[in-house]
Amino acid sequence: LKKINHGGVTTPLGYQSSAICADIKGNKSGKKDFGILVSDVPAVVSATFTKNKVKAAPVIYDIQLLSEKSEFFGIVINSGNANACTGKLGLENTKRICSEFENRLQIDNKSLLMASTGVIGVQLPVNKMLKYVNEIVNELDDTDDNLAEAILTTDTVIKKSAYLVETENGAFVVGGIAKGAGMIAPDMATMLAFITTDALVNKDIQDEVLRLAVEESFNSITVDGDMSTNDSVFLFSNGMSGISVNHGENLELFKEAVKAVCLDLAQMIVRDGEGATKFVTINIKNAKSYEDAKKCAFKIANSPLCKTMFFGSDPNWGRLMATIGSSLIDFDEDKVDIYFDNLKYVENGLLISEDLEDKAYEIMKKDSFSITIDLKIGTFSKTVYTCDLSYDYVKINADYRT
Amino acid sequence: LKKINHGGVTTPLGYQSSAICADIKGNKSGKKDFGILVSDVPAVVSATFTKNKVKAAPVIYDIQLLSEKSEFFGIVINSGNANACTGKLGLENTKRICSEFENRLQIDNKSLLMASTGVIGVQLPVNKMLKYVNEIVNELDDTDDNLAEAILTTDTVIKKSAYLVETENGAFVVGGIAKGAGMIAPDMATMLAFITTDALVNKDIQDEVLRLAVEESFNSITVDGDMSTNDSVFLFSNGMSGISVNHGENLELFKEAVKAVCLDLAQMIVRDGEGATKFVTINIKNAKSYEDAKKCAFKIANSPLCKTMFFGSDPNWGRLMATIGSSLIDFDEDKVDIYFDNLKYVENGLLISEDLEDKAYEIMKKDSFSITIDLKIGTFSKTVYTCDLSYDYVKINADYRT
Repeated sequence: LKKINHGGVTTPLGYQSSAICADIKGNKSGKKDFGILVSDVPAVVSATFTKNKVKAAPVIYDIQLLSEKSEFFGIVINSGNANACTGKLGLENTKRICSEFENRLQIDNKSLLMASTGVIGVQLPVNKMLKYVNEIVNELDDTDDNLAEAILTTDTVIKKSAYLVETENGAFVVGGIAKGAGMIAPDMATMLAFITTDALVNKDIQDEVLRLAVEESFNSITVDGDMSTNDSVFLFSNGMSGISVNHGENLELFKEAVKAVCLDLAQMIVRDGEGATKFVTINIKNAKSYEDAKKCAFKIANSPLCKTMFFGSDPNWGRLMATIGSSLIDFDEDKVDIYFDNLKYVENGLLISEDLEDKAYEIMKKDSFSITIDLKIGTFSKTVYTCDLSYDYVKINADYRT
Repeated sequence: LKKINHGGVTTPLGYQSSAICADIKGNKSGKKDFGILVSDVPAVVSATFTKNKVKAAPVIYDIQLLSEKSEFFGIVINSGNANACTGKLGLENTKRICSEFENRLQIDNKSLLMASTGVIGVQLPVNKMLKYVNEIVNELDDTDDNLAEAILTTDTVIKKSAYLVETENGAFVVGGIAKGAGMIAPDMATMLAFITTDALVNKDIQDEVLRLAVEESFNSITVDGDMSTNDSVFLFSNGMSGISVNHGENLELFKEAVKAVCLDLAQMIVRDGEGATKFVTINIKNAKSYEDAKKCAFKIANSPLCKTMFFGSDPNWGRLMATIGSSLIDFDEDKVDIYFDNLKYVENGLLISEDLEDKAYEIMKKDSFSITIDLKIGTFSKTVYTCDLSYDYVKINADYRT
């Protein structure tokens, strides 16, 4: 597995992208907000979507198409408008935009998917958008910075990752781009990720590889515990490297590469969380079940009291204990050990020494640190990634539309 | 039911209180932090406690005593230290402090309860506290402002309420004091409430009256969704009015009065939430079940995205729809109506008109407003009370101990 500098969604063979500013928000910001990712040949697509019961029109559209067929030429993407809570017209607009691209690209009907992100409850400015289809298609090339930029909302940096994988028969590549920022939570809050590969893989195997990678990456991060109407992760494989990854060693390498890209993108999303100043890794160890470990980790990662404590660099272990308790998992207060990075701070439910406070404070002042909670009553563990809760989170979200 | 101005926990017949500064935090703030509430005669006590699996020493102590007997002379209370995560020594300290008061008051062993609030994980400064027992007992009188002040932590105002109830045979009074601020959530996060009455009531009936009142008041409020190790609500009845409320009309009046006091105190807690600038009432109407209505109401009341939107006075109904969806309750997106106060803003899942935005903004700019969500698929409703999430919440909690 070799990390590719500046690698992204068009790094694997046979992918092109393009994006422009269609002024979808209508505020003449000049920011790119509309684009497309296409494969030169049909690609097998796997995807996972938000569990929110309110699903955006493009999510409903994609789920329907993916139930009908498994190969697609690409995906149309816009930011600035989520096309959620937009009723039948919202669904028709999705279809209309995809059709226009399909006609222009001279590919079959229903061979493009769509993803949207942005404000909820406002119809897409379709007529305005359709005027840009020609320009977008004309500008297709094998770079992806424009598209990586066009999918952002309150994100502050583009998010890209790619790995080259050498096998006995040759090499394949897995790459991706993502957007995140606020509303990131388990089961994928407002986040979009697009992963591509030139490996050759069957639909069933690819579905399972994506499911596992998402559980360990995008479903193991949280910014504020909210879950959006639009979250989606797509994995496209076009087989253009000629390397099959359906079996044995190659399958293991493929799993590893997809997970590495997903984890890179997921961690970049947390680091760029709305107002985030710190990246915090929460390790729960030796819980009675995986569900308990996960529940406890997310309870801490989403607790406003814990998150403001991270912001304030305050090693207030009592808040951690209270939060473990409020997660209602099985545990024994008198067995809990707590570490800040490698510093053991609490043993068997009690502070080891007040003298350690300064050391713990120094660790928490860093822009990245870990908290490990060893429950010592089982064998199951879970790691989640989160950020702190700062003044800027409030500022960004109080002023989102104004 | 007649509201008594400045009424509190010593307004019913036969109750006295007292509180002083014992410098429990050790920072010489001069703030009152240690006191007692006593009844002239033994009172029947009902109580509900935090569901957090990590319970503070006084909570463990009280639960034990309440399982052994039902009548007590009063309760010792301190702020500045939660006596939670303090192991066996914490429990011994609780017992030692209660014993000292029992000796000084010349009452039976185990006839006082205890409640604590403040920082977790630090032992109580017992020796310092014991020195103040005499002074506290000497200053007992029938006022309660000192005690109402001594139980506060990050609260900014004292919280008191009392009602006079006239019956055919005479009058009785129900009164109370409370502390709240941050960490207020369903099932009672860091909050303490002490309710007293001079009515005469059996233990079983009183338990049920308190349970119902708490469900509609303290368990229907939230500041930040966290749940503490110390939350407790106590109801003392000493029967000194001579009015029995065990049956018929009197029982109904008693229920009403206890609920009124609890609701007053609960709403004061939300209004005084950490950094709160607005009091928001969330009404969920016509859900398929009470559980669904409650789940949905709390999901909105605890959502950082909704709470920052309240702070910013932004009628971003899409966030409300997304949050209803993420609560995973049964509902139909196309049936949802949303009101800001009495202004119908969304009908059948769609914005009625963009022209309403200014009106909705004016409503949300007020320091108190309601959001009503009519799901139109059932007959169950739930109201919860919450506040917004402001810069000051972050400030208060990032700096709590420093």
